[in-house]
Amino acid sequence: MSLLTVGTLAFDDIKTPFGHAEKVIGGACTYISWSSSYFTKDINLVSIIGNDFPKSELDALEARGVDLSGLEVKADGKTFFWAGEYHDNMNQRDTITTDLNVLDDFNPILPASFKSSDYVMLGNLTPAIQAQVLDQLEGNVKLIALDTMNFWMDIAMDELKAVIKRVDVLTINDEEARQLTGEYSLVSAAEAIHKMGPKYLIIKKGEHGALLFHEGKMFYAPALPLAKVVDPTGAGDTFAGGFMGYLAKTDDMSFENMKRAVIYGSTMASFCVEEFSLSKLKVLNEGMIEERAKQFQDLVNFTLK
Amino acid sequence: MSLLTVGTLAFDDIKTPFGHAEKVIGGACTYISWSSSYFTKDINLVSIIGNDFPKSELDALEARGVDLSGLEVKADGKTFFWAGEYHDNMNQRDTITTDLNVLDDFNPILPASFKSSDYVMLGNLTPAIQAQVLDQLEGNVKLIALDTMNFWMDIAMDELKAVIKRVDVLTINDEEARQLTGEYSLVSAAEAIHKMGPKYLIIKKGEHGALLFHEGKMFYAPALPLAKVVDPTGAGDTFAGGFMGYLAKTDDMSFENMKRAVIYGSTMASFCVEEFSLSKLKVLNEGMIEERAKQFQDLVNFTLK
Repeated sequence: MSLLTVGTLAFDDIKTPFGHAEKVIGGACTYISWSSSYFTKDINLVSIIGNDFPKSELDALEARGVDLSGLEVKADGKTFFWAGEYHDNMNQRDTITTDLNVLDDFNPILPASFKSSDYVMLGNLTPAIQAQVLDQLEGNVKLIALDTMNFWMDIAMDELKAVIKRVDVLTINDEEARQLTGEYSLVSAAEAIHKMGPKYLIIKKGEHGALLFHEGKMFYAPALPLAKVVDPTGAGDTFAGGFMGYLAKTDDMSFENMKRAVIYGSTMASFCVEEFSLSKLKVLNEGMIEERAKQFQDLVNFTLK
Repeated sequence: MSLLTVGTLAFDDIKTPFGHAEKVIGGACTYISWSSSYFTKDINLVSIIGNDFPKSELDALEARGVDLSGLEVKADGKTFFWAGEYHDNMNQRDTITTDLNVLDDFNPILPASFKSSDYVMLGNLTPAIQAQVLDQLEGNVKLIALDTMNFWMDIAMDELKAVIKRVDVLTINDEEARQLTGEYSLVSAAEAIHKMGPKYLIIKKGEHGALLFHEGKMFYAPALPLAKVVDPTGAGDTFAGGFMGYLAKTDDMSFENMKRAVIYGSTMASFCVEEFSLSKLKVLNEGMIEERAKQFQDLVNFTLK
C-alpha cells in the first residue's frame, strides 16, 4: 500500500551530553520516510527544501522507494534549520535556533498520483498546512495519522482542533495530551481526544514507551532500555514512520495488528536514538529489525499462574 | 514463609490537585505491611510510634496477620509526621514538614522470633538503622530487599553503599539510580549497581512502570493507566510490599516468578494511588487483585507474526 509522508526536511545542529552534531540531516519527514521505507517501498513524499540540501541525500531516499515528485526545491532559498540542546535528562531539550527559511513559503501541492495514497502520515507542521494537504486527498484514504506539538496548542489551538477532527490517529506526547484536554489522567485525556475525532490515540512517552488507545482498549509498548542513547532527535517521527510503514505493509487495522505496528514503531525509534541524525536508520536490515522487535516481546512477557 | 517488614509508621498530611488529607495514616512500613498481607499472613513488623497512634490501626494490622511484637511504643513521644504537596505533575512533590519525633530515637531491636525471618523488606530509613537490622538477622534469610531515596545519597552515601552491599534486591527510582551510579543509561546504571552488591535491581518509574534487572536480563512492568489517580503517596512502598509478599507466598526465586512478583507489586501500587492513605488497600480481596493483575497482562500482551 502507498504511504504519503508530509513534513520537514531540515538541517539540525544538535548538542547532547554525548556530543555535538553540526549541520546534520534532520526533519520530521526525513525520519518518517527512512523509517517507513523498511516496511513499504511505495512512499510519496511532500516537503520543501532550499538550494543547499545535498543531492546525495535525495538520491538515498529515492533508492529506498521514496517518490520525490512532491518535493518542492526553492532555488533561491535555504532549507529549514533547527538547533537544539539536550540536558542530562534527555527527555527535555531547549531550542536554540529555528530558521524557517523556505518553510515560510511552504504551500504543499500534491502530485495527482499522490492524491489517492492509501495511508497518510502528516508530520508536525502548522495545522493550516496539514489541513491543506487533507483538502487535496481524493478517493478512499484508509488511515490518516497526524503528529503535532505543544507549540501549536499555544498559538493555534482552534486550527489544530479543526485538523485533528479530520484524522484517524493522533500522535502526541503525554504532556501534550494533558494540555490538549485539560485532563491529568491519560485515560481521561484519551476519552476526551476520541471525542475530538481521532479513533486512535498514541501517547508517546519517550524513554517511558508509548500508549495506544482505541475504543476503550489500551496497549502499552515499553521503550527498550538501551546501554547507549546518543540523541533522541527524530525518535517520535521515526516511531510514526515505523508505525505507518508497518500498517501500509500489512493493510490490517485490527487492534492486534495496530499493537504490532506500535511495537515496530518503537523498534525503529530504539535504533534512531543510538546515533546522531539518521546514521543508524540508514544501516538497518530486516533481520536487525525482527531481532529487536523480539527483544520488546521478551522485555514485557510474563505469565500469571 | 515469614516476611520481616521494617520502616516507619507515620501520620501524613497530603495535598494533591484532587484534595487534602489531614493527619492520615502513612509510613513506609504501614504500606509495605498492608500490601504484603494480601499474600502472606506471617509478617513480622519492626517500627516505632508515639503515644498518639490509633489503637484501631494496630488492631487492623494484627487482624491482617502482622506480628507487632517488634513495634516500640514511646509513651512520652509523638509519631513521625510528614506533610507533602503534589503539583499538577503528580510524579513530583514538595516536602512541607518532616517531624521525626520518635523516629529520632529509633533503635530497632528484633524479637528473637523475628531474627530468622525468611524474607526481609527494609523500608526507606537511615542507612545506619537499616544496617543495624541486618546485624541482628540469624539463620538463612532467603532474600533481603532494601528501599532508599536520594536524601541518603546526598548526606550519607558511604553508609548507604555499605548497606546496599549486603542486600539482594535494591529498589530505587530512575533518578536515584542515575545519582547512585553517575550513569545516565538505566542499563549501565543497573550494571554498576549489580557490582555494588544487589543481584536484583528494581527501578521504579512511578506512572511509567518499573524495571527489573538480574544477570543481564530485563523485565519491564508497565504502570496501569488509571482514570483516577488521587494520591501517589506510598505507591513505592505498596509496590515493595506486594513484590516481597508474593515472593514470601510462592518461595520461588526463578526469574519468571520474580517477574510475576513485580506485576503483583505494580498491581497493589495501582490500587494504592486511587485513594488517599490506605483507604483502598484496606478493602481489597484476592479476586480484585487477580482481576487487576490480568489487566496488566492484557495491557502489554502482543504477538509478532
